[in-house]
Amino acid sequence: MSQPDSRKLSLNTATVREKWTLDQIIEGCARHEIRGIAPWRDQVQALGLKESARLIRHHDLLLSGYCRGGMFPGSTPEERREKALDNRRAVDEALELGAPCLVLVVGGLPAGSKDLLAARQQVRDGLSELLDYARPLGMPLAIEPLHPMYAAERACVNTLAQANDLCDELGDEGLGIAVDLYHTWWDPQFQQQIERAGVDRLLAFHICDWLVPTTDMLLDRGMMGDGVIDIRSHRQAIEALGYSGLHEVEIFSRNNWWQRDPDEVLAICKQRHREFG
Amino acid sequence: MSQPDSRKLSLNTATVREKWTLDQIIEGCARHEIRGIAPWRDQVQALGLKESARLIRHHDLLLSGYCRGGMFPGSTPEERREKALDNRRAVDEALELGAPCLVLVVGGLPAGSKDLLAARQQVRDGLSELLDYARPLGMPLAIEPLHPMYAAERACVNTLAQANDLCDELGDEGLGIAVDLYHTWWDPQFQQQIERAGVDRLLAFHICDWLVPTTDMLLDRGMMGDGVIDIRSHRQAIEALGYSGLHEVEIFSRNNWWQRDPDEVLAICKQRHREFG
Repeated sequence: MSQPDSRKLSLNTATVREKWTLDQIIEGCARHEIRGIAPWRDQVQALGLKESARLIRHHDLLLSGYCRGGMFPGSTPEERREKALDNRRAVDEALELGAPCLVLVVGGLPAGSKDLLAARQQVRDGLSELLDYARPLGMPLAIEPLHPMYAAERACVNTLAQANDLCDELGDEGLGIAVDLYHTWWDPQFQQQIERAGVDRLLAFHICDWLVPTTDMLLDRGMMGDGVIDIRSHRQAIEALGYSGLHEVEIFSRNNWWQRDPDEVLAICKQRHREFG
Repeated sequence: MSQPDSRKLSLNTATVREKWTLDQIIEGCARHEIRGIAPWRDQVQALGLKESARLIRHHDLLLSGYCRGGMFPGSTPEERREKALDNRRAVDEALELGAPCLVLVVGGLPAGSKDLLAARQQVRDGLSELLDYARPLGMPLAIEPLHPMYAAERACVNTLAQANDLCDELGDEGLGIAVDLYHTWWDPQFQQQIERAGVDRLLAFHICDWLVPTTDMLLDRGMMGDGVIDIRSHRQAIEALGYSGLHEVEIFSRNNWWQRDPDEVLAICKQRHREFG
């Protein structure tokens, strides 16, 4: 099994956000020769959009995506309109930063609702509207299926098949999928659905590991190699289809990695990417 | 939307197991006029198989299933053989108790393995072997797809589609599916896959609720009505296909329901079943 190209490593800034601000993270990536980065909107806002873009260019970093838009469902038309406007701003920011795509966490059930079908319809409608804005501007939207354990609160698109269905329905131009192994490693249709997607829909590839046991549903993700995901096989399957983009490491880990010295975290990310990526 | 038939309510004994032994649970069900029960193997063993069967018959309770067999994958042939023998004993016990099916939680990754495909193959092989034993004896096996968050540790069959695939492959005689809404409510293919299953494969129907937030991946299930699952719609969909079996309430809840007086829990189960079931 072949090792991954180390130049493909990208850091999702959430991985070290507890201890570093965005400018520190950008400089950290440069120092550790991590060539890719995926910043979050709140961090970009804190540093300033222009300064974020300038620093990223100055250090010659590539973006693997911009985190994030989505959260389409809402209890009222007003709430959904507000989200729609905010999503347009996210597209504008992604353009300014030179991101290859805006990653979409599509949102779950509106407060008080048990109607998952309606939420999924709202996702479809919100996505369609955002596409009308993003397509002419040339900013691709990447639907990220989230693990079914987030169906209620974060994303009611929970399988690659659903993401493919949305691409089929809304058209491929400027639309694709962010494949995050944390969310999809269990999926019996993984191989079948990435083949169905094909290289043109594969806009992003995120990695980390599933710990056994997992002690927190949101904030206990593992470093590559510490869990049960066969990351290498999945990466090779994606690349066998022609994917040549970055490998983005995104680790939410309140009690472990977020507590460590970020320089140590980045060094270990690099090493584990070589070993298990 | 029509109310459920109250005579369909069944209690999975895990729901009150922290405070009551099996004989107390059986007597509690009788006292509360809950006509169905699904006992666990360790509780049956503690009370004695014959005494358990006698008490259940004495109180004229119906079983909705016997909990449980499965856990097929293992690191070594010896480990798998031991599990196979134990599963045969579970079939024998289910027969003695007059259970309508043995519920199967199929098991996850063997210790140290990252090979989910191999684990799924071991499930298929173990299930095939157990069928050879259970079919001539007339004890149906009910594959229970578990939520994908349990793929590593408890069950690598995570969708109704996988369970249907196994039934297709191994043959329908004496084989079917236990549909638990906690595990399947998020599945975009729910309706399609229960239709594919058809009434003959629908051997059991389990209910509880998905809490928002869920604070523990195993032990924070909700009472019907306290979460986001549209239980009634799903129950009606199952019954529209001809399912006429029991509605089994199974709640693992370390910090809430397991702490309460079981008489209170049973009374609330009945009320919530009427209201949300």
